[in-house]
Amino acid sequence: MKSVKGGITSPKKFLVGSTAAGIKKRKKDMTVLLSELPATVAGVFTTNVVKAAPVVWDQQIVAQHQPVSAIVVNSGNANACTGKQGDADVRAMAEQVAQSLHLVPEEVLVCSTGVIGVPLPMQKVLEGINTCTMHMGHTSKHASDSAEAILTTDTFTKTLAVEIEIAGKSVKIGGMAKGSGMIHPNMATMLSFITTDAAISQSYLQTLLGNTVVDSYNMISVDGDTSTNDTVLVLANGAAEAPELVPGTKEAQLFEEAFMYVHTELAKQIVLDGEGAGKFIEVEISGAPSKQDARLMARSVISSSLVKTAFFGSDANWGRMLCAMGYSGADFDPSEVSITYASERGMIAVMKDGVPLQFDEDLAKSILQEKIIYVSAQVGDGKGSSTAWGCDLSYEYVRINGDYRS
Amino acid sequence: MKSVKGGITSPKKFLVGSTAAGIKKRKKDMTVLLSELPATVAGVFTTNVVKAAPVVWDQQIVAQHQPVSAIVVNSGNANACTGKQGDADVRAMAEQVAQSLHLVPEEVLVCSTGVIGVPLPMQKVLEGINTCTMHMGHTSKHASDSAEAILTTDTFTKTLAVEIEIAGKSVKIGGMAKGSGMIHPNMATMLSFITTDAAISQSYLQTLLGNTVVDSYNMISVDGDTSTNDTVLVLANGAAEAPELVPGTKEAQLFEEAFMYVHTELAKQIVLDGEGAGKFIEVEISGAPSKQDARLMARSVISSSLVKTAFFGSDANWGRMLCAMGYSGADFDPSEVSITYASERGMIAVMKDGVPLQFDEDLAKSILQEKIIYVSAQVGDGKGSSTAWGCDLSYEYVRINGDYRS
Repeated sequence: MKSVKGGITSPKKFLVGSTAAGIKKRKKDMTVLLSELPATVAGVFTTNVVKAAPVVWDQQIVAQHQPVSAIVVNSGNANACTGKQGDADVRAMAEQVAQSLHLVPEEVLVCSTGVIGVPLPMQKVLEGINTCTMHMGHTSKHASDSAEAILTTDTFTKTLAVEIEIAGKSVKIGGMAKGSGMIHPNMATMLSFITTDAAISQSYLQTLLGNTVVDSYNMISVDGDTSTNDTVLVLANGAAEAPELVPGTKEAQLFEEAFMYVHTELAKQIVLDGEGAGKFIEVEISGAPSKQDARLMARSVISSSLVKTAFFGSDANWGRMLCAMGYSGADFDPSEVSITYASERGMIAVMKDGVPLQFDEDLAKSILQEKIIYVSAQVGDGKGSSTAWGCDLSYEYVRINGDYRS
Repeated sequence: MKSVKGGITSPKKFLVGSTAAGIKKRKKDMTVLLSELPATVAGVFTTNVVKAAPVVWDQQIVAQHQPVSAIVVNSGNANACTGKQGDADVRAMAEQVAQSLHLVPEEVLVCSTGVIGVPLPMQKVLEGINTCTMHMGHTSKHASDSAEAILTTDTFTKTLAVEIEIAGKSVKIGGMAKGSGMIHPNMATMLSFITTDAAISQSYLQTLLGNTVVDSYNMISVDGDTSTNDTVLVLANGAAEAPELVPGTKEAQLFEEAFMYVHTELAKQIVLDGEGAGKFIEVEISGAPSKQDARLMARSVISSSLVKTAFFGSDANWGRMLCAMGYSGADFDPSEVSITYASERGMIAVMKDGVPLQFDEDLAKSILQEKIIYVSAQVGDGKGSSTAWGCDLSYEYVRINGDYRS
């Protein structure tokens, strides 16, 4: 696997067009992605009982197990808590895309992100769709404009592409995502779109996606809130002309690794750009009785407000970390826990086999003042390990979210 | 039931002595409570896997179902994550109290709160116990000194007493608590001590306490972290000479109501004094299919960082509230939800039967700028209702917790 320039238009036969439709003020806010060949689709959606109208639409489309051709996304308005009008607006968006691109509405997926409870400005949206579909292309500029159009309070675009070789053919996977607020295990206010020109069956793709989100998007946390609009969609159009992937083969394994890499990198980029995040924290738990125990502990640590504020203050407060592991619901023996902090500045052990160590507070402080921090906890001699990614809790987070709607 | 002046020494035959033993700098940090008659004891403890040494000791004492006589508490050091030394220190504390007050160590409960992972300064602690036991009394000053000695980052003491009449006898319940950080459903870094001169069996008292914490301490949240030291202890010494309470009688009901009132008021005071809390938020959910569904929703709302920052910003962001209800795990239909905000400034409806209402943003802002805010959500026509109490998430919370150990 190698990284390549580009994003969602790196795989063959994917085009995208974007525009500033006026939903946001003077910023790109709409994008339409087209696969020129009918594409296999897989999707994972928010677990929130309160689902935005486009989520309900997309879940129905994905459940049909039929090829799709396009995704339309708007930012600036989530079309959530908008009642029957919201459902009608989703359909109108799909119909407009279908008409412009000579498709049927059931081939069009719809995503929205932004403010909740306000009806979409449909005239702007429909005109925006027309503009997007009239300016489609597959250049890096097209891909980066698209990645920009899906952002809300994000401060940078999140995009990447990788290439693998399958049976002598170049197969690519491209992706883009947005996150920022409401980022928490079990999906977040995040949208993630993955394209690939691999050939893969719907059932394999859906299973693979389901397994992948568990250790990528579900292992990140910015603020503990799970949103109404979370969506991950994958389109696979087979345009690379490589043979269809068969689970269990070494080609499939190669693809699965690249697929996991793309989702994990996007998830980490989402955390890096978390609202008010000043530091990126990687928490690795090892030696747990099971992988699920390790996941629970890692997620609990990165979700703890007290742990997050300690990182903000560059405070090696391992007690809060152990405490968060303790209430995670995971099974472990506190007397077997060893904890280490690390960053570019070095590494420091703060607990060994359940006993707090005397450590150099100045060194600890200098390690924790870095922007990227690695925390590892060995909790026993079990085989379960897991990694989670989070950020500190800063004044800036409070500022941004104390005044979001204004 | 009527409120009376005083605290844990209001019920008969309870004495307390406190001192500044030097664990904290120049502040009261130790207190010893004595019941002059052997007292029935009930306790509820942290659910954290990582339990402080005194929690383990107290759990054993309570499990014996034998009368106890004293509680010793220190603040400034939690005696948590202190290994075998921590266990030995707890026993030494109990032995010292027993020796000073002519008891056996198994009649002495021990509580600690403060920094984690540092051994107790035992010489100071043992001398402090001697000082406490030499200056015991039952005046209001004794009670308020004791309430002060258990505080950590709390900014005020939490104490109250109530009186009821049972069979012509005055029966009192007194209480004191400390909270501040790590306050979350399923107990918190909180200690709560309740005394009563009612006569009540151990099994009835333990059952009653278990039922009571569910709707008092377990319905508050400051920051989502569950600590290693959470403890609620109740001593009942029968000194009022009223007949023993029998479950199901109207006397028992009277006592249960007063008991719930005392715990709920202490829980609310803990939230009012939450770290960095500028506003007190009461969330009432009604019309849920079950009480447990209502509890889940109310707790989810008060625990959401996004909801809390919105309150900090006086932003009527009902979307975040609905979202938090949606990921709570409770069963409800979003299309039946009605939401209202209220405070001293008035009341405003923001959602009716799942439909967002046009509302006066200026009025909403002025309502939410108050210090005490009431939010109610009717989620259907079920019989389940529940109330939770929380606070906003402020810059001050980040400041306090970004630099706690320093």
